[in-house]
Amino acid sequence: MNGRFLSLEGGEGAGKSTQARALATALESRGLTVLVTREPGGSEGAEAIRTLLMQGDVTRWGPRAESLLFAAARSDHVDQVIRPALEAGKWVITDRFIDSTRAYQGAAGGIDDAAIMALHGFGSRGLLPDRTFILDLPVAEGVRRAGIRDGGMIDRFSKRSEHFHADVGRAFRTFAAREPGRFRIVDASRSPGDVTAMLLAELSDLLP
Amino acid sequence: MNGRFLSLEGGEGAGKSTQARALATALESRGLTVLVTREPGGSEGAEAIRTLLMQGDVTRWGPRAESLLFAAARSDHVDQVIRPALEAGKWVITDRFIDSTRAYQGAAGGIDDAAIMALHGFGSRGLLPDRTFILDLPVAEGVRRAGIRDGGMIDRFSKRSEHFHADVGRAFRTFAAREPGRFRIVDASRSPGDVTAMLLAELSDLLP
Repeated sequence: MNGRFLSLEGGEGAGKSTQARALATALESRGLTVLVTREPGGSEGAEAIRTLLMQGDVTRWGPRAESLLFAAARSDHVDQVIRPALEAGKWVITDRFIDSTRAYQGAAGGIDDAAIMALHGFGSRGLLPDRTFILDLPVAEGVRRAGIRDGGMIDRFSKRSEHFHADVGRAFRTFAAREPGRFRIVDASRSPGDVTAMLLAELSDLLP
Repeated sequence: MNGRFLSLEGGEGAGKSTQARALATALESRGLTVLVTREPGGSEGAEAIRTLLMQGDVTRWGPRAESLLFAAARSDHVDQVIRPALEAGKWVITDRFIDSTRAYQGAAGGIDDAAIMALHGFGSRGLLPDRTFILDLPVAEGVRRAGIRDGGMIDRFSKRSEHFHADVGRAFRTFAAREPGRFRIVDASRSPGDVTAMLLAELSDLLP
């Protein structure tokens, strides 16, 4: 039997990587085999592309080159890591996937959503998660949390304006409204334990 | 007035970079301003992607991730270098462009030509050269020349089989047959001076 594919999305500091690990632990305690991964990156080739994407000035890459690089990294990640794990019956939890590209390069960056989905169709045969959680948090709170966590180290995306990050958050909520079967919005301002419990509750229909 | 955009295509060892320089010298002696560039690479970002593409095993990248990386590199090269030069009235000569992706990743690598052109439409707004020269050489002769030049140093593409390189050569000739207005096939087994003279003769309709 094939595994299930879950993605966690949201802005900086929303707790995606913390929740990915906590959810994996909870699913493993139910006897499932779980792989936790992240984007950009998650495979050897995609991590090399991640380095190109995260370093340098905000303007290092134009929005089209950037979208192509994300699609290339995702293609490698899907081929090398995600599909083999799903075919082996594992549950896969990824910290960011296609919806981050749709929100950052698409809604906030000005690239047409249909073009981004066409690149995803080409590179990753259009693979979509069985469920996508939006960890929703006010922008200012996310920036504050991310600043504490990273000790002032910021990458090309964190450097963008508060206006840009507000656009990203709005985009995630719009995707969720349009595709309620795949998406669930979770209030990420709650305690980590509460958030994990909400994620599990919203997976009940997928659990064996 | 806008400049003209020329590309040189062909297999390994066909003399593309030698002819790019010789043609530039000949055009400059006619009073034109010429920029010589190459792919993959040609801009700071694209050269970084080139490093990812040329290193490692033949199988490091799947054909779809590879096509996306080439499209990303070309997008950066066109945005940062080629279009600004053309808009400044320069003639641009590039050693390889979109037709290499169509031949290597497309015809020889199994990726659909329409998909490659769609990526080019997205990344580079479909920019095509005013003239593309195919430097045609028997595969064995090209491999022999490239081996002498590189002193045995070979990259991910040179490592492929003779069958693969024969497919590439056939693809270039097919493109030229389909689009005779843009393409010219030149016999690259002739002396370098003869080849340059043939290139110039095949540009007479574009020269001011």
